[in-house]
Amino acid sequence: MTGLPRQLDLDMIAMTFDESRTRSSFLLQPPLLRHDGALYGGTAIAVAVMAMEAALQRDVLWVTTQFVFPAANGSTIDIHTEALATGKRIAQMRVTASVGEQIAFTALGAVGAPREDGLVGQYEQMPVVSGPDDAPDLHARGPGQMQPPGDFGFRRLVEYRQAMIESTDRHADGTMALWSRFNDGRPMTPAGIAFLADMVPVAIARGAGRMGAGTSLDNSMRFVEITEPTEWVLLELQGHNASGGYGHGTVRVWSQAGALLATGGQTASMIYMSEIPGMELPQ
Amino acid sequence: MTGLPRQLDLDMIAMTFDESRTRSSFLLQPPLLRHDGALYGGTAIAVAVMAMEAALQRDVLWVTTQFVFPAANGSTIDIHTEALATGKRIAQMRVTASVGEQIAFTALGAVGAPREDGLVGQYEQMPVVSGPDDAPDLHARGPGQMQPPGDFGFRRLVEYRQAMIESTDRHADGTMALWSRFNDGRPMTPAGIAFLADMVPVAIARGAGRMGAGTSLDNSMRFVEITEPTEWVLLELQGHNASGGYGHGTVRVWSQAGALLATGGQTASMIYMSEIPGMELPQ
Repeated sequence: MTGLPRQLDLDMIAMTFDESRTRSSFLLQPPLLRHDGALYGGTAIAVAVMAMEAALQRDVLWVTTQFVFPAANGSTIDIHTEALATGKRIAQMRVTASVGEQIAFTALGAVGAPREDGLVGQYEQMPVVSGPDDAPDLHARGPGQMQPPGDFGFRRLVEYRQAMIESTDRHADGTMALWSRFNDGRPMTPAGIAFLADMVPVAIARGAGRMGAGTSLDNSMRFVEITEPTEWVLLELQGHNASGGYGHGTVRVWSQAGALLATGGQTASMIYMSEIPGMELPQ
Repeated sequence: MTGLPRQLDLDMIAMTFDESRTRSSFLLQPPLLRHDGALYGGTAIAVAVMAMEAALQRDVLWVTTQFVFPAANGSTIDIHTEALATGKRIAQMRVTASVGEQIAFTALGAVGAPREDGLVGQYEQMPVVSGPDDAPDLHARGPGQMQPPGDFGFRRLVEYRQAMIESTDRHADGTMALWSRFNDGRPMTPAGIAFLADMVPVAIARGAGRMGAGTSLDNSMRFVEITEPTEWVLLELQGHNASGGYGHGTVRVWSQAGALLATGGQTASMIYMSEIPGMELPQ
């Protein structure tokens, strides 16, 4: 019996581990897919978190997941987890996920045991926003605004509601705030947060005043300990800039009580909805 | 003759490349070091950028560098650069840097050729700050505030001046703004920006109202095209949060004219100055 991987996370992605917990695998199937039927980026980063946490039985501190190849529905994805350096508290980890010989995604990151007298704090505040009960579902925004959830995609697991920002310490074009939760109401874990926070490209397009999204090249997230269970999280999404068709942005993930649970950054190839049907999150 | 690596970057770090440009190496020596004489994190991320750009002759889009082992002064560092996926425009890259059999640092990232009609834009504004001529050198802040530049460290190449923030769209505890340039006045490149922007841990400590810094576990940066040469950049640093002794924060890198050239994130083990003499940037 070990604490990691968490049963809650295994309920989301049914990874199986060998005895050393450095080799694992999972069957890529609904609802772990994008709308086009390929591997969803949020699945990849959640798997990377689970693999790192399991290997050394320590909580994830940060992870960067690189999306290499869009593995297809029905693939078995094999994961190799290496500890490149293992200190008394911190370990630097590398994850390589493959379908046969083809790398599907890779990840770097660290896990760490907390220091009892270590620094704890939060240096930013959550925006004041309308609550989840007052926020409309992202799907209910009218014709042409949003595709319905795919029959097989990750949206079967996750709900997104668009919050109204009433006041904030951070002002910029195109900031978006989405309440999100798992449909079954499970509490958030780092892997769960990673699964549902893969939404930055939408905010880059929003920053540009466009309808559209993009294809994520990567997802980098940083986590603190979750001290109070939360069903809902607020994704505060911000596009920063773009050039040559490539955009960058960040996400802050807040608990409903206003604790900053995670921060993340993504780069995306910004291709518009009209050019690619079946995109992950057109709007 | 190729455009990448840039001569300006080779003047900073004298990497040598094989004919394929997928194998390279450099001698770790002053001023590419921390104050304690080990590999400076900014050197590692700059090398990762140069290696990725050189291999496929495309500009860097994003990079995450993981610091595995603090290579010592005098080490020869060998770099292996792999293209894990090579598209017509985008390539996903992996860099492994070793001293003998010991991995010193690894990196993931992407390089890309710009799309002519691709998205270009900036969705945030630079804070209004005092100019570099009116900003005191970080070293000139009085006894106990800052160590003098090391004789052999990276501070021999780079200048930091603390700007006063007059107004900003982003309000949080502990935001810091530092003007930075290379002492020889060279214009900024992505690798140059990566070299000098490894300063987030200072802002995490500042967020906590403490004097101290930390040991970076990684550095993740995202770049847009630099369209106008700039000698100075403004590092807008923000600590986000911390738990168990591990802190997270971000940096925005602005040109003197207010163009957002890069954004970055770092996680650090937050150990205080009084506990570790010879830290990279005590204050």
